[in-house]
Amino acid sequence: LKRLIIVGYGFLGKRLARVLEKYGREELLLAGVANSRGYVYSDQGLRPGELEDDLSRHAKFREKPPIEMVENSDADIAVVLTPTNIRTGEPGVTYIRTALARGMDVVTADKGPLVIAFKELVSEAESRRLYLCYEATVGGGIPIFSLARQYFRRDKILSIRGILNGTTNYILSRMHFEGLPLDLALVEAQRLGLAERDPTLDLEGIDTACKIVILANALMGMDKRLSDVKVAGITRITSEAMMAAKEMGMTIKLIGRIEEGELTVAPRLVKLNHPLCVHGTLNAIQFRASLMGELTLIGEGAGASTLASLVSDIDWILRMRGGL
Amino acid sequence: LKRLIIVGYGFLGKRLARVLEKYGREELLLAGVANSRGYVYSDQGLRPGELEDDLSRHAKFREKPPIEMVENSDADIAVVLTPTNIRTGEPGVTYIRTALARGMDVVTADKGPLVIAFKELVSEAESRRLYLCYEATVGGGIPIFSLARQYFRRDKILSIRGILNGTTNYILSRMHFEGLPLDLALVEAQRLGLAERDPTLDLEGIDTACKIVILANALMGMDKRLSDVKVAGITRITSEAMMAAKEMGMTIKLIGRIEEGELTVAPRLVKLNHPLCVHGTLNAIQFRASLMGELTLIGEGAGASTLASLVSDIDWILRMRGGL
Repeated sequence: LKRLIIVGYGFLGKRLARVLEKYGREELLLAGVANSRGYVYSDQGLRPGELEDDLSRHAKFREKPPIEMVENSDADIAVVLTPTNIRTGEPGVTYIRTALARGMDVVTADKGPLVIAFKELVSEAESRRLYLCYEATVGGGIPIFSLARQYFRRDKILSIRGILNGTTNYILSRMHFEGLPLDLALVEAQRLGLAERDPTLDLEGIDTACKIVILANALMGMDKRLSDVKVAGITRITSEAMMAAKEMGMTIKLIGRIEEGELTVAPRLVKLNHPLCVHGTLNAIQFRASLMGELTLIGEGAGASTLASLVSDIDWILRMRGGL
Repeated sequence: LKRLIIVGYGFLGKRLARVLEKYGREELLLAGVANSRGYVYSDQGLRPGELEDDLSRHAKFREKPPIEMVENSDADIAVVLTPTNIRTGEPGVTYIRTALARGMDVVTADKGPLVIAFKELVSEAESRRLYLCYEATVGGGIPIFSLARQYFRRDKILSIRGILNGTTNYILSRMHFEGLPLDLALVEAQRLGLAERDPTLDLEGIDTACKIVILANALMGMDKRLSDVKVAGITRITSEAMMAAKEMGMTIKLIGRIEEGELTVAPRLVKLNHPLCVHGTLNAIQFRASLMGELTLIGEGAGASTLASLVSDIDWILRMRGGL
């Protein structure tokens, strides 16, 4: 029997708790959940049904810093779903460090800790023979790291290119297909909940750069930081530029790229019939590898499909730990 | 130390032998290779360098039926790369049965045995606790079954659609982009070595149907045969039909589909900006799964990239057997 705790109990966390109910309680038990205001923990296991509403109304709710739950629990797996801070990595990085120090395998969807401290966290996990899984951090519902674990082990990845930010891809798609100017497409995206009120990280390419850093470190053995990425966003793309591209059978996409050791994020011309050229909120990632040649993966980069990546990571850990 | 034999020593087999040299000889030894005329076997291992030319010139060449090598060797892994016969499954199916009976794990790129006897072979492997891996049989260099093994285990695949035949996709792409009639595009494909002299199996959709059968049985727990697939090929597609599609921002693609228990292969209208809509010899496959939503994989369906799938299967077996 493995015990699991979820730190960061919002949209994803709640849905994850529901999905985990499908596991037998003799193999996996949801033992605790925490949000920023406190936590609920029980060695006997929690039912997501009892947690669905405001966490603080639960009989066992403790209005304490959630780190207390990580420090005191005997969980086997910590799922860290904290909001991303790419400057400090907090609060995720502290939860992950603490969980590893307590001997827990860790699954996370938070990019921040991996952008800030990839090497440190991975080494820490390896030296303790623990798993640190982060499929959900790049391309939400696209199985990038699972594939690497399974398929690329004896191959050599030569380069990676991708559309890794759904918000900017939605905006660029609207500009391409409807001829909208960027500011109108942005307002529309905000109204649909596809862009945040402060969309700077997306529009300036920073979010894509974070993902490129994780990919370079995780898949190509590099040791890169955010400051190593040459970044240009989409804010200067005009409708005129987009229409000019369209007339040539092309469009403009925000492409993150790792090639010959260089990490870049920039708007680039892409042929409309290129496999990478996906529209709307879709993400796409293309690998070039020595044996395999080129492989492109296309899927949703955010939202509910991210759940599939979390479940896959948890499942992998359970299998490797002999629980399944 | 694991011993490996290759039955079917042609283009793929020779390249595979070269790649396997990268493994340490203390973990993996190429012990034997066979073609239709005979075999070379050595418990001490073979160097691909000594095999590169005509196999029958090798000092240890035995002009005997290759099944003899499978029956008499103590190999751990048999790689079966025989030419596909979708009516009988032979000779691959006999090699695979024999290898399993001798306690070998099996890796194959031959669709025939799986189309003819999927359930029998998989049950046989399972009852003997052996691995039967066939990543190379569908979408050559696209990691379909690896992904299923890794990512979909707790998810439910609801439907599959794909462009799974590079020859017909090349022909349809030429018809779309150059306005060629089908017969001219076919001649061109034959000249480029992309279509066989008798292209019936490709053009009539039979090759795609075989792959759909394997996908249905392997990924969706079905027990289907070739006769269960409703098949229409591309031979009746005219340039006029293609141009009409093009004017609507669409094109015609040969789509294999598994949906609501129904297996079909047919030319279908596809929007030019749909993720599945890839051109040239590219293959594409789209999964819809309960948690993950839609995921599309695009890559080369044949040729050298198939090597990556063979290596990945072999690597998986070595890991599961604790060799790595």
